[in-house]
Amino acid sequence: MKPKIHRGRRLSTRRKMAIAALSVAPVALLTALPATALADEHTPLGVSDETQFILNTFAFLVWGALVMWMCAGFTMLESGAVRTKNASMICLKNIGIFSIASLAYYFIGYNLMYVDVGDLIGSFEFLYGPSDAELGLIDGAVEHVGDVVGNGYAVMSDWFFQMVFVATAASIVSGAIAERVKMWVFFVFTLLLTAFIYPIVGAWYWGGGWLAEEGFVDFAGSTIVHSTGGWAALAGVLIIGPRLGKFRKDGTVKPTPPSNVLLVTLGVLILWLGWFGFNGGSQLALGSAADAVAMSNILVNTTLAAAAGVLAALAVSRPIMGRMDLFAGLNGALAGLVSITAAPYLTEHWWSIIIGAIGGVICTLAIKGLEKLKIDDVVGAIPAHLVCGIWGTLAASIAGDASFGTQLIGVLAVGGFVFAASLVAWKLLDVIFGLRIEANAERLGQDTAELGIETYPEFVLMPEDFGDDD
Amino acid sequence: MKPKIHRGRRLSTRRKMAIAALSVAPVALLTALPATALADEHTPLGVSDETQFILNTFAFLVWGALVMWMCAGFTMLESGAVRTKNASMICLKNIGIFSIASLAYYFIGYNLMYVDVGDLIGSFEFLYGPSDAELGLIDGAVEHVGDVVGNGYAVMSDWFFQMVFVATAASIVSGAIAERVKMWVFFVFTLLLTAFIYPIVGAWYWGGGWLAEEGFVDFAGSTIVHSTGGWAALAGVLIIGPRLGKFRKDGTVKPTPPSNVLLVTLGVLILWLGWFGFNGGSQLALGSAADAVAMSNILVNTTLAAAAGVLAALAVSRPIMGRMDLFAGLNGALAGLVSITAAPYLTEHWWSIIIGAIGGVICTLAIKGLEKLKIDDVVGAIPAHLVCGIWGTLAASIAGDASFGTQLIGVLAVGGFVFAASLVAWKLLDVIFGLRIEANAERLGQDTAELGIETYPEFVLMPEDFGDDD
Amino acid sequence: MKPKIHRGRRLSTRRKMAIAALSVAPVALLTALPATALADEHTPLGVSDETQFILNTFAFLVWGALVMWMCAGFTMLESGAVRTKNASMICLKNIGIFSIASLAYYFIGYNLMYVDVGDLIGSFEFLYGPSDAELGLIDGAVEHVGDVVGNGYAVMSDWFFQMVFVATAASIVSGAIAERVKMWVFFVFTLLLTAFIYPIVGAWYWGGGWLAEEGFVDFAGSTIVHSTGGWAALAGVLIIGPRLGKFRKDGTVKPTPPSNVLLVTLGVLILWLGWFGFNGGSQLALGSAADAVAMSNILVNTTLAAAAGVLAALAVSRPIMGRMDLFAGLNGALAGLVSITAAPYLTEHWWSIIIGAIGGVICTLAIKGLEKLKIDDVVGAIPAHLVCGIWGTLAASIAGDASFGTQLIGVLAVGGFVFAASLVAWKLLDVIFGLRIEANAERLGQDTAELGIETYPEFVLMPEDFGDDD
Repeated sequence: MKPKIHRGRRLSTRRKMAIAALSVAPVALLTALPATALADEHTPLGVSDETQFILNTFAFLVWGALVMWMCAGFTMLESGAVRTKNASMICLKNIGIFSIASLAYYFIGYNLMYVDVGDLIGSFEFLYGPSDAELGLIDGAVEHVGDVVGNGYAVMSDWFFQMVFVATAASIVSGAIAERVKMWVFFVFTLLLTAFIYPIVGAWYWGGGWLAEEGFVDFAGSTIVHSTGGWAALAGVLIIGPRLGKFRKDGTVKPTPPSNVLLVTLGVLILWLGWFGFNGGSQLALGSAADAVAMSNILVNTTLAAAAGVLAALAVSRPIMGRMDLFAGLNGALAGLVSITAAPYLTEHWWSIIIGAIGGVICTLAIKGLEKLKIDDVVGAIPAHLVCGIWGTLAASIAGDASFGTQLIGVLAVGGFVFAASLVAWKLLDVIFGLRIEANAERLGQDTAELGIETYPEFVLMPEDFGDDD
Repeated sequence: MKPKIHRGRRLSTRRKMAIAALSVAPVALLTALPATALADEHTPLGVSDETQFILNTFAFLVWGALVMWMCAGFTMLESGAVRTKNASMICLKNIGIFSIASLAYYFIGYNLMYVDVGDLIGSFEFLYGPSDAELGLIDGAVEHVGDVVGNGYAVMSDWFFQMVFVATAASIVSGAIAERVKMWVFFVFTLLLTAFIYPIVGAWYWGGGWLAEEGFVDFAGSTIVHSTGGWAALAGVLIIGPRLGKFRKDGTVKPTPPSNVLLVTLGVLILWLGWFGFNGGSQLALGSAADAVAMSNILVNTTLAAAAGVLAALAVSRPIMGRMDLFAGLNGALAGLVSITAAPYLTEHWWSIIIGAIGGVICTLAIKGLEKLKIDDVVGAIPAHLVCGIWGTLAASIAGDASFGTQLIGVLAVGGFVFAASLVAWKLLDVIFGLRIEANAERLGQDTAELGIETYPEFVLMPEDFGDDD
Repeated sequence: MKPKIHRGRRLSTRRKMAIAALSVAPVALLTALPATALADEHTPLGVSDETQFILNTFAFLVWGALVMWMCAGFTMLESGAVRTKNASMICLKNIGIFSIASLAYYFIGYNLMYVDVGDLIGSFEFLYGPSDAELGLIDGAVEHVGDVVGNGYAVMSDWFFQMVFVATAASIVSGAIAERVKMWVFFVFTLLLTAFIYPIVGAWYWGGGWLAEEGFVDFAGSTIVHSTGGWAALAGVLIIGPRLGKFRKDGTVKPTPPSNVLLVTLGVLILWLGWFGFNGGSQLALGSAADAVAMSNILVNTTLAAAAGVLAALAVSRPIMGRMDLFAGLNGALAGLVSITAAPYLTEHWWSIIIGAIGGVICTLAIKGLEKLKIDDVVGAIPAHLVCGIWGTLAASIAGDASFGTQLIGVLAVGGFVFAASLVAWKLLDVIFGLRIEANAERLGQDTAELGIETYPEFVLMPEDFGDDD
């Protein structure tokens, strides 16, 4: 019943890249050497392997818990951003996404992404579990402790941390395609995305596949997580088309402001907090002084980029949107966060301000641009996650020492695969089940039409005006 | 003024059981042995006692903070689930519960539960504080460090972690009995529950009393915390009766959907996050590789059980409820979480999926069943916390190696005592003060009638229809 | 581009005071000594310097992340407390505050507060970054690890932790002066506060300036953070005057109850959680058993003071306010938290209950008192943060061993400077730009008038009655 664990392989992948990106000497060398040299100076350097193991593991768990919390951020952001009549459906979708993603990643995704990865994909085994040494240790066989500790971290702590990332990628999709996609069909797509599409591109890079061999740099997933979610969303939005009445026949755009601004703001602040786990935890280790230094720099860059994204987006919203726009500012925070995610380890922190600020500006421009292209992305997920994911990945070659060409290859390869696979998946789902709810259900709202509930049954709401040309 | 500390006793209780449940060799052995054996191999195993002390303590504090956060989860869940006219009262009750629980546990509960526990109860001393060695160390007497470290964790970090558990138990009650119980009388019951009832059953097991001697297994409190809260809630609901008009004379049930679905969802996601602290922190140690491995497995099981609970509850809600029901899904998350809480350490993670899924199903069935019995539990606390608490405790003997008979004894004993004590307490409170608000106050809502405020004073709300037969 | 780092200086400031306040022997002594003495007893005490470094740094990051989360607490509290027509503006202001504060503290504030501090201020350098040793280590030059570890914690982890504190101070202001101050002018004041005013008083104490030399005690910032925010708010409120119609010509006060009670409650619970980071992280170290003990005591005192604040405020609200008041209780939590912030390390925990309870009472009295003085503080920020900040600072001399005279000097000096500087700043801004929005914009609400959005565009809201005498 228990799968065979290939720890040697997994050790050499995402962790190796994190080290490489920082140009840090391997941890073992780092801590063993001074410990030997300085042991007689009464200031012992070095951290025992078991202590390292505990610290690495605990960092995965604590930061992973914060990344799980991003699920609440997406739920509040998206449910506050849609019309009231569809807000409960967003809640259901988001709790469903997290549930499906974690089971899909348990049964298929993790093995496909991390276990026995060749150039393209890993293993098709089912289930995943603690290593034999861990099972032995937990059963009291103390002699296994060396093997356990040799892995660097508890096997399932890594699974936990990687799992919350796949849930994040899937959450990005639901906001863009909201208010018109059938719940069950959306769940099927979520399953495909989290069991196959995301794990495959993940295997290319974090799994140690061809993109890792090329020297691609994407520390915490501007491309692998955020652009992947963004491409899948874009494919879905193109197949399903805009909401009824969003783009009027006279060329104007129907404004669809968030129905609950406070919860949108709460959602963004939750995501900001969760991002400390997303980027900080992606150091993947806390067992040496070098790791602690790197993790600190990462959190600083993360928050500076977000702050710069907010202020830049607010500043340009007036000329672009015609007014100082709160939602531009809130999306600017996410834009800054996504932009810095590819290279949050930069040691010249003013770079994170520049990268975040540019992210805030291009996100605001992209929101306007999508409208011009009559692409209906309900919450601005594509500008924040796809466009800024690309920007951040390329920026890692401008501010850091990644190769621009390799970064571009990574962006295009991941984008090409995810977009194509998603397009095929959405199209097949459309042909087989139909993606879109009935027009009457869309007018009435999914909460009443599909779920039989109302988000605020006791509040008096405005009737929505659809105009005569939807 | 300072109480005498009996650390020797407390060390041998909840921690011992955590170790026993995992069949792990005592930590001291585990880490000391390899350190000696392998010291000359340049990969030192072992963690110094002081480092263990720090890690154990920090885990209590970080995970304890997350459990405190569950108070916000209950508050959002319950206040979003009640009628708008009673939502502010829920806020007041929940912040009151946490405040009363922490003071009651400081003055009475902790000593009763953990200090000098015989078979049934601990000590009736007042106050609780750092050990003498800790006071000495903090005053600069370095020679106390050995004694301090010998305790395994900072004395008050354990108090903090245990205190947030009692607050959780009390929070369960407020949701079930909402919308008709007098605030002050409810607070008196909260005091009784947190100062006496919960600490007594806690002493039986975590305090090292007779139930621990029997070999009962309830790792993080499916029975001790969740069923205790659920039994207290059931007793209260039976004494106070259903809300006016809930069960109509014609046999139909008046639907009382949540007034704010988004906040219910937020509440569930907060609880999910907090549960990582609830279950993960219940490992009670982070000082060895074995602890780190166990804590990782626990977080994985916790999230898989919740995910399975969501999907199973959604799946069965259509046949049971007549539609795919969001609240069934949200309660399914809690059902899965409660169900896995008795044995979150299982190393075959697919068991947590089965346990969580069954939890989601029986919770959904129990919601319907309570309605049939004309028992009015406003938020579904009894199905999620009591019924799934029982299921999870029994499941520890199916999936793990607990004895079914002993588990049943524990369930019955705790249930019998808590239910009887609560029934007496509620009845006495009813006779002396009256449990229930006036019928007019209930129709008007507690916010206006008791607190003189409105939750959303500027929003236009629907008038509620009570019908002619309430 | 990279600034020169003066670690020697920074080590001797806030950390030194934390140690002094606890009367703890220096950490190095504490851990080195027993390690030597007891090494051959098979229970090794002591923590390697590198492990200490990692633990200290990780504590900064984890607790700092929780303090950042307080931004969400202030946002929910304040936006739920204002009229609906101004709620989106509060969201914009709070996300703007955090962004401005973090950039201002990066470019100016931190250097001014912590680098090369004389008696009064630090350095006027721009930018801040990792130390040269850290840069070397990250580049793989392992020989720097001793220098890196010698600093005690990663340089930027301290910046991160200190930065979230300045954001807290600034957040206090926005609630008091809400519903009538121009957004841009408020942002300019935020810049002045976070780049100059707060860092200057911070330098006096945490930077190691004259107030530290005097022996002032303010462990986590009752005066330095909370009163500073409160004084800046008071100055602003006095210059700008009350909201239109708040104080009627007939001497009555127009009630302006929170528009969304649930989000106010959520905000308070977020702040409560965040305060564990605020106070617990202010131990500034986790590298020894003494630190772990102190941090545990701190979290216990923090939660007991909050609980006592809630219950005391509720109890006195009936005679003072004429009814059991939920907002008094919620503000009581904050009052208790602010009150214990100057001395959360007390080892006799019942003192925290007394300090918190008195805080809850005086906060409730102060809310009523401000109304009598016709000072319009929208959310009660001045009672909770300024009045209780003063109380808590003085209480550190009653319950702890601080000197009452020195505490009073600190309170008056910080208060005098911050109030005067803020008064000048607000007045200049008023003269140059005008502080206050147009009367029509105030009646209409800032959301529509300044931002062009509505917080709940689909909800039907009550028209506000301004009366005939505003």
